[in-house]
Amino acid sequence: MDIALVGIGKIAVDQHVPSIAASPDWDLTATVSRQGSVEGVPAFDDFDRMLEENPGIRVVSLCLPPVPRFDFAARALKAGRHVMLEKPPGATLSECGELENLARAQGLSLFATWHSREADKVDAAKAWLADKTLRSLTVTWREDVRRWHPGQDWIFEPGGLGVFDPGINALSIVTKILPVPIHLASAVLRIPENRQAPIAAALSFAHPGGARVACEFDFRQEGEQTWTIEAVCDEGTLLLTHGGGQMYIDGQPTGETEVGLAGEYPRLYAAMAALVRKGGIDMDLSPMRHVADAFLLGRRETVAPFDF
Amino acid sequence: MDIALVGIGKIAVDQHVPSIAASPDWDLTATVSRQGSVEGVPAFDDFDRMLEENPGIRVVSLCLPPVPRFDFAARALKAGRHVMLEKPPGATLSECGELENLARAQGLSLFATWHSREADKVDAAKAWLADKTLRSLTVTWREDVRRWHPGQDWIFEPGGLGVFDPGINALSIVTKILPVPIHLASAVLRIPENRQAPIAAALSFAHPGGARVACEFDFRQEGEQTWTIEAVCDEGTLLLTHGGGQMYIDGQPTGETEVGLAGEYPRLYAAMAALVRKGGIDMDLSPMRHVADAFLLGRRETVAPFDF
Repeated sequence: MDIALVGIGKIAVDQHVPSIAASPDWDLTATVSRQGSVEGVPAFDDFDRMLEENPGIRVVSLCLPPVPRFDFAARALKAGRHVMLEKPPGATLSECGELENLARAQGLSLFATWHSREADKVDAAKAWLADKTLRSLTVTWREDVRRWHPGQDWIFEPGGLGVFDPGINALSIVTKILPVPIHLASAVLRIPENRQAPIAAALSFAHPGGARVACEFDFRQEGEQTWTIEAVCDEGTLLLTHGGGQMYIDGQPTGETEVGLAGEYPRLYAAMAALVRKGGIDMDLSPMRHVADAFLLGRRETVAPFDF
Repeated sequence: MDIALVGIGKIAVDQHVPSIAASPDWDLTATVSRQGSVEGVPAFDDFDRMLEENPGIRVVSLCLPPVPRFDFAARALKAGRHVMLEKPPGATLSECGELENLARAQGLSLFATWHSREADKVDAAKAWLADKTLRSLTVTWREDVRRWHPGQDWIFEPGGLGVFDPGINALSIVTKILPVPIHLASAVLRIPENRQAPIAAALSFAHPGGARVACEFDFRQEGEQTWTIEAVCDEGTLLLTHGGGQMYIDGQPTGETEVGLAGEYPRLYAAMAALVRKGGIDMDLSPMRHVADAFLLGRRETVAPFDF
């Protein structure tokens, strides 16, 4: 199937372009971007013109930032194209709901992707937890914003989400692997005095079985980076490390460690191909809803200024 | 039908109790509260005991604050009771989703009430706007927090919503009367330097027809109080005043002015009776979703400290 890619920035070049190139499902036949392009692929800067001139492109993948994303997604859907959205699927929950209604009215596929859910051991973790009695779930997501987002001031602007940009990845895994729903009970958001968005956050959730569910997100982690989820159950302890790339049950690893994003984006593009073939919408907003709840209910604390 | 009222505070005494007393549909047969009670009605402080001892009470109305509300609602639904929720329906969007799923699984009615939607002229405004071409919609909601919430520090605490406590009423009207969906484009939240929640806010929304949609909320309004919505259309101008109690079309009033909350709560209880009789769920979260979007996307500005 022919696909167009919109927003040729770092994540597009690092993940989307190679995943599409390696896929048996997709041919990258156009890009739309103000600056970037991909060698050998027709490049447009006018999205509507690309759609008009390429009626054979039935699918559009949007990896531009969340704030302008709604406009492009709505125009693609109105033009009869299936749409794939980078995470988070929009700047507001309301606009995501509008897109879902529009896709349904048009009979088109819409996929809100959560790449971390495709990490290698996430399905196995979900299967293991399905019949266990959870006592506590602890998420520790500590990374160095200077290393992963060097100079990207937008991440601390309104809508940039701050530490919830990686934190929403953890929440996308948690909401996939837990067999029951949770909701935020309290949160602390730590905001640098010269910024708008949190650089660290601590969340506590209510779990229907009374388990202690807590997340610790921190963007100030130098040295070793940590992306782990530990689930202590009556039947044993599950530990996900490497953002879902490795799983330990009672301390024993369960296979090779997948490092970095590795297979995540190829699996997303395979899932999009399957969704388009069978038809339908995959628009699970629960990770983003938890983030909005944290902004709504969280207590704000001012911390030291942050500069890149 | 027998009904129990939970949380006997100011809004219960001022609105819920008289509305139930005046209704042909309802008998108030129990209250649950840590402090308040209603003369002549059996008072409980243990919610589960009230449910156990009163199998004939099929409906529970919850008017306690949003943060503890989920627990009571979930227990009532699990005990097979229909539930009516004061606004906002919970402290988080995620918990509201859980309640909706629980009610559906139990085959029970659940009603997220928005009392301002029942203001006298709101239905007429919706009907008038249905076939008009909107150019701008301007919401002005300015009231004196010292007058309406004297000494209520909780309103400026996390989860208390600050000026969005009245502002969500305006949003509940806007989302009812507009024939198309809108989503937040930008917002400014003005937060007193000694408080957690905004004392004023300015919101700007994206409208599918390109109309300018803006809200101005302010909790610092002394003297005359303003709760108006003005809709300028190609075909004329609609003005709602008194929080929906009066409507002007091109400057001409459309009937008597309903002042204060007047008929709002009696209409809510009539709507709940109808919902229980026909079965089903009325859980429109759109006003709360817009507030969460404002907390998620809004730019925060620090303003002068506020004390009651």
